[in-house]
Amino acid sequence: DYALAEFWKWTLAFLIGVTMGCIGFIVDWGIETLNNFKYYHTVGIIASRGGFASPFFMYVGISLMYASVAGALVSFVEPLAAGSGIAEVKTYLNGIHIRGLLAVRTLVAKLIGVVFSIAAGLIAGKEGPFVHGGGIVGGGIGSMGTQTLTSMFRGRWRLEVPRKWGGFFRNDAEHRDFTAIGTAAGVATAFAAPIGGLLFTIEEGASFYSTSIFWRGFVSTGIGVFTLHFLVEAAQHPQNILNAHFGRYRDFGLYTDSLAFYGSRMFYYVWDVPIFCLMGAMGGFMGALWVHVNVKVTAFRHRFIPVRSPWKRLVEVIALVLVTSSIWFTVAYMSPCRQLPGKEDLKYFEASEDMDEEFYAGGGQFRRHGLEHFPQLWCENGTYSVYGQVFFTPLSQALRLMIHLGEPLPEARLNEFHFDFSVLGLFFLLPYALMMWTNGVGASTGMFVPALAVGATGGRLMGQVVRASVQWAGVSLPVSLTSYSVIGAAAFMAGATRMTLTTTVMVMETTGAMQLIVPLMITVFVAKVVGDQFGMGMDDTHMKIRGAPVLDEPALSPHQKMIADKLAVSELMSMAVVALPPVVKVRQVVETLRCCSHQAFPVTPDVKKAFDSAEPFELHGLILRHTVLHLLQHRIGFVDTAQADIPPSRSHIPSTQAARLKLLEKLEQRPLKLRPKDDQEPIIRGLSAAQLEQMVDLRPFMQRNPFVVHADASLSRAYRLFRTMGLRHLFVAPPAPKVMGVITRKDIAEANAKLALGRKANLGLTTPS
Amino acid sequence: DYALAEFWKWTLAFLIGVTMGCIGFIVDWGIETLNNFKYYHTVGIIASRGGFASPFFMYVGISLMYASVAGALVSFVEPLAAGSGIAEVKTYLNGIHIRGLLAVRTLVAKLIGVVFSIAAGLIAGKEGPFVHGGGIVGGGIGSMGTQTLTSMFRGRWRLEVPRKWGGFFRNDAEHRDFTAIGTAAGVATAFAAPIGGLLFTIEEGASFYSTSIFWRGFVSTGIGVFTLHFLVEAAQHPQNILNAHFGRYRDFGLYTDSLAFYGSRMFYYVWDVPIFCLMGAMGGFMGALWVHVNVKVTAFRHRFIPVRSPWKRLVEVIALVLVTSSIWFTVAYMSPCRQLPGKEDLKYFEASEDMDEEFYAGGGQFRRHGLEHFPQLWCENGTYSVYGQVFFTPLSQALRLMIHLGEPLPEARLNEFHFDFSVLGLFFLLPYALMMWTNGVGASTGMFVPALAVGATGGRLMGQVVRASVQWAGVSLPVSLTSYSVIGAAAFMAGATRMTLTTTVMVMETTGAMQLIVPLMITVFVAKVVGDQFGMGMDDTHMKIRGAPVLDEPALSPHQKMIADKLAVSELMSMAVVALPPVVKVRQVVETLRCCSHQAFPVTPDVKKAFDSAEPFELHGLILRHTVLHLLQHRIGFVDTAQADIPPSRSHIPSTQAARLKLLEKLEQRPLKLRPKDDQEPIIRGLSAAQLEQMVDLRPFMQRNPFVVHADASLSRAYRLFRTMGLRHLFVAPPAPKVMGVITRKDIAEANAKLALGRKANLGLTTPS
Repeated sequence: DYALAEFWKWTLAFLIGVTMGCIGFIVDWGIETLNNFKYYHTVGIIASRGGFASPFFMYVGISLMYASVAGALVSFVEPLAAGSGIAEVKTYLNGIHIRGLLAVRTLVAKLIGVVFSIAAGLIAGKEGPFVHGGGIVGGGIGSMGTQTLTSMFRGRWRLEVPRKWGGFFRNDAEHRDFTAIGTAAGVATAFAAPIGGLLFTIEEGASFYSTSIFWRGFVSTGIGVFTLHFLVEAAQHPQNILNAHFGRYRDFGLYTDSLAFYGSRMFYYVWDVPIFCLMGAMGGFMGALWVHVNVKVTAFRHRFIPVRSPWKRLVEVIALVLVTSSIWFTVAYMSPCRQLPGKEDLKYFEASEDMDEEFYAGGGQFRRHGLEHFPQLWCENGTYSVYGQVFFTPLSQALRLMIHLGEPLPEARLNEFHFDFSVLGLFFLLPYALMMWTNGVGASTGMFVPALAVGATGGRLMGQVVRASVQWAGVSLPVSLTSYSVIGAAAFMAGATRMTLTTTVMVMETTGAMQLIVPLMITVFVAKVVGDQFGMGMDDTHMKIRGAPVLDEPALSPHQKMIADKLAVSELMSMAVVALPPVVKVRQVVETLRCCSHQAFPVTPDVKKAFDSAEPFELHGLILRHTVLHLLQHRIGFVDTAQADIPPSRSHIPSTQAARLKLLEKLEQRPLKLRPKDDQEPIIRGLSAAQLEQMVDLRPFMQRNPFVVHADASLSRAYRLFRTMGLRHLFVAPPAPKVMGVITRKDIAEANAKLALGRKANLGLTTPS
Repeated sequence: DYALAEFWKWTLAFLIGVTMGCIGFIVDWGIETLNNFKYYHTVGIIASRGGFASPFFMYVGISLMYASVAGALVSFVEPLAAGSGIAEVKTYLNGIHIRGLLAVRTLVAKLIGVVFSIAAGLIAGKEGPFVHGGGIVGGGIGSMGTQTLTSMFRGRWRLEVPRKWGGFFRNDAEHRDFTAIGTAAGVATAFAAPIGGLLFTIEEGASFYSTSIFWRGFVSTGIGVFTLHFLVEAAQHPQNILNAHFGRYRDFGLYTDSLAFYGSRMFYYVWDVPIFCLMGAMGGFMGALWVHVNVKVTAFRHRFIPVRSPWKRLVEVIALVLVTSSIWFTVAYMSPCRQLPGKEDLKYFEASEDMDEEFYAGGGQFRRHGLEHFPQLWCENGTYSVYGQVFFTPLSQALRLMIHLGEPLPEARLNEFHFDFSVLGLFFLLPYALMMWTNGVGASTGMFVPALAVGATGGRLMGQVVRASVQWAGVSLPVSLTSYSVIGAAAFMAGATRMTLTTTVMVMETTGAMQLIVPLMITVFVAKVVGDQFGMGMDDTHMKIRGAPVLDEPALSPHQKMIADKLAVSELMSMAVVALPPVVKVRQVVETLRCCSHQAFPVTPDVKKAFDSAEPFELHGLILRHTVLHLLQHRIGFVDTAQADIPPSRSHIPSTQAARLKLLEKLEQRPLKLRPKDDQEPIIRGLSAAQLEQMVDLRPFMQRNPFVVHADASLSRAYRLFRTMGLRHLFVAPPAPKVMGVITRKDIAEANAKLALGRKANLGLTTPS
């Protein structure tokens, strides 16, 4: 059984990867299609009629149409699909469940929502929703069953897979592990960055890190990205799939590696490093400012556009899209025109081998022969729209151009900037300002791509300043604007999210900037340190705002550490404990369930003592509310009152071990988890009067050894236990523990344990527990 | 104080990086110098006299000279400097200290040793010793003090830094964290692979993973590699340091990025993936075989060449070097000659911009103008020695050639292999065979580079087979031998070490094979799965052989998990506990210390009960042997017998909190840790008869809340506590705990804790603990 479980763990990780690869492909295809529709029709009107008004209405109209779909999915289908979902998933991985967070309905709303949000032109990306979506897929595949669909079919089919086909992993911890693996696969497929995705989960997501998650996540992200690449290739050139060169595509690379000459584009000088540090500091500051303003916006929104009024939320989304798309369109309209680059310069733009790129680009320019990135719009023939180049294109495409365009050969044309300062200024300030509003709006949005785009633009600005200074000083030294863009992108992303290794690796993987690993690390680190001076990163801030009792790592904040060291557990505990006796009348159970909202009850014979006094009581175990409800619902564990004179001693196990296992299996075959709040009353009302008088024996179902800490232990001890063991309750024993023995590492190492087990087997004893 | 500690944590991480960068530079320089000496003189003799005998004696003679230095450092200076040290460092990070493992002397012996081992031509690399060396540097810088140097100066100068200058981190857990950070910086600087180094520590090293280590490790590896790059650049072209392009050097890249055209060299087809899986399986199998044979060799060595006979060990090293260098030299001598490549083909070999490469190459060929990699040796003018190309050069250089050489343009010369099958076969089998002997010999050696070299050769063999088959099938499709080499290297390294993410990232970073991330992940995973069928990886095997009670992660082996679930803690504990009373006669302390070798003692008034019976006794705290020795040595905490009638109640704290802190500070100002085994007797003998009659009060010095587990908890519970909390002792309380309250996540979250602290402060209470 253990080996079979192991096998399924790996297989499910593999399946998660494949599924996320397919989802990634479908979402990309959806965004591409919607974007093409929007840009194609707008460009058509510009070409045929010109002018401002009619293309404006076409462009904004289509955007608003998309926006209403995106907003409606959140407002009327599933409110949890709003925003990036990273904060919620982190909360869940920290050990706090939010109802419906991992439901199939949320998945569908989220992923369709993000397609429409992005196509509507919101300052948003798809990675946050992919984190959430990946988590849902991971949890769902892990537990091999769904509650939503089951209830959709009114229980006629039970959509869950039997144990031997992989339906193993339904307890909390395992579900959490699979969810974590799913988030890794989600990030990986959103960015085609397998290692970045895995690191995201390690750094941000899982507070219960283990090597086993690590390895399974590794499989999952690798397979996920491979599936994605394969599908993209197969969709583009199905006949060529066998001799296509794989592995040369980067999500934020404009050309494939063979055309890019990354080596000559991306380099840095030793004196760049202090400038990079400065950029890191600015990135950290900008990130903190963004968080600060967004908190204000969120508070405002909380007051005037609450979650419970879906129409208001929908109107906000539409208003935001109206503002965004009007600005973007107007900027593109007001653009100056400029001469198209010459044949020689185009040599490297022409992505002849580059099939993936076009697929992802999200269309719109409709020029050919290497001029795909130079939209004509309202300009004369032979010229192109300078602002339109980044404003009249999807955000992720603009990010690609920002990083890569304008340097076919870095040594060439030292005196001329491809993007002039006005484009950069506009494309830096406008998205940055709108990001503050967008985050938290009632649509499915992610924040990585916008952060990267703003950062890359800022970085390029800085690079052009540096290049101009170098020239002004009369030195003929090429300065790599591409390097500056990449560094800038990482700086702002690190400032906004405060992730270090993930930001570095993700930026490196998606842009191909392997040459810049070290300066990336340094910049990211400075951004984090500076940002941390002003408060937490975006996701953590939102987690705090929502008030979920999330436990950070205690080592992180010196202030918190000080508090935890100074307080003892006894100063925080609650002494009035609502408990249940081991064998109890059903009526009493029902009363207890109704009287309070606790999620778990200690099991003890001295229920009165537990509640009334500070006296210690004997703790036999812990039983969860939903286990109790299960028992009531299916009448499991009921005993006649006649038999109930069994002395409720602790060591008593229902007749034999075998009988106990049978009972447990009976319990396990019940469908998936209940929703205590909704399901409690119906279940209770379903009990007949006679049943209420029966007794129920909780002992086979309780968790036998809840964690216990002694009252005089410091709070940091409790803190560590909660975090690393993933607890929800910790019982407090009186100070001055009495002990009977000691166990050392040597006792516990595998060889000794085997020995003891063998001894036990020889003696023919059964486990006393 | 908390904030200051935080500041120093980061600063010390920074310093660790800088130090390791410098060490990396010096070691590289040392290897380079010694190698140049060897090859220069040998080539000189070949050129002037020719023939076999005289160059042979020169070559082997110099190698043996180096070998005796390498062997002597291990045999006579510090036996712990043998081998890679990875197993030992992992053991330490798992919570078990080995004496002298982290001493300065070990560091010096190890690093000088590895320079000579590699220069002697052993099948060895520098990364293992760098892991160990990094650990020593990390631990030393972390605790800001050294024991070896202190004792070298006979205590005249105490080489430790006061608290406010960073001398903060001297407890076990912090020392361990810094050691972990040091290992990351070590790997990173050995390979110029900052992310690979960090991941190595996360995946392999630290069983106590925390985000704080993660971030500090990040700083440390980034700065380490930057320092290394900077020094290399500065040493080569000091005048050009300001306009040198940084970031384009790869440890296993033959050219810099701008010349390499990685994009056109490294690609894969979708049908390559199953072949890569096959290679992964072969790598896993070869790794397992290597481990298996090496275990046999180790057992043999344990019997006939034990660690305690240094001369035998030295002779073994010399014999090994004799065999290795004779074979290498003879193969090079017997080499066929071949036409030098033409001007056109050389275009890409000529590394005009490539200053780093030459520095690292380890010299030897003494040709110019792009022919540096084509040694003439005994060949005619215009030809070069085919075997000599990989056998008459340092191993790491041969690895570089194996990966990169022979494909200036991948499309060119489809019908001709640069390396023919005989070279590959020899360079595959000979190092593989010698690796089995070399690992564990009495010299400082690492195994990553040899594993990569063997794997890369095998991969290229496979690639040539595939390419030949493709041609035989009449398809004109270029097959990237470089890709095959990289995949092969990763496959064998993963098979040997069983690291997944680390192998992938490290190979990617050092070879520049970003294009191959996904197939690398898949291959590495297959290699791991196949290898795991046959047993553990090399380092874990060696850890097991040494019998240290290391705790793996319980989730890893289903068998072990089953055992842990079935056993209860009570079945493994020892009941006869040697304890100390809270206030105790010095004589009794001395007797207890002498009577047994335990490293820690519980403190309880009922010493007799603790030892004799299974009755539970009251546990007041835990005191470490070395704390007790400190107390005795410096007469801290001694009280007159007259005063000793203080009732030894638990809650009693020496008069006031202030007095207690003063005592603790007094203790802390003593020099670093003692070595109980050696220092115990002198300290005890130093006590006068009067002092023996005094009492000592242990209460201020004991650890107040040792971890306690209940007797009926399962072994897996204990296992998790040991691992995640880094325990050495765990006390066992009687079953059926009595509890008085409960604490939930909400109680513990920061806001509540702050509140409680405020309340407490308002009431003017002092902490009761």
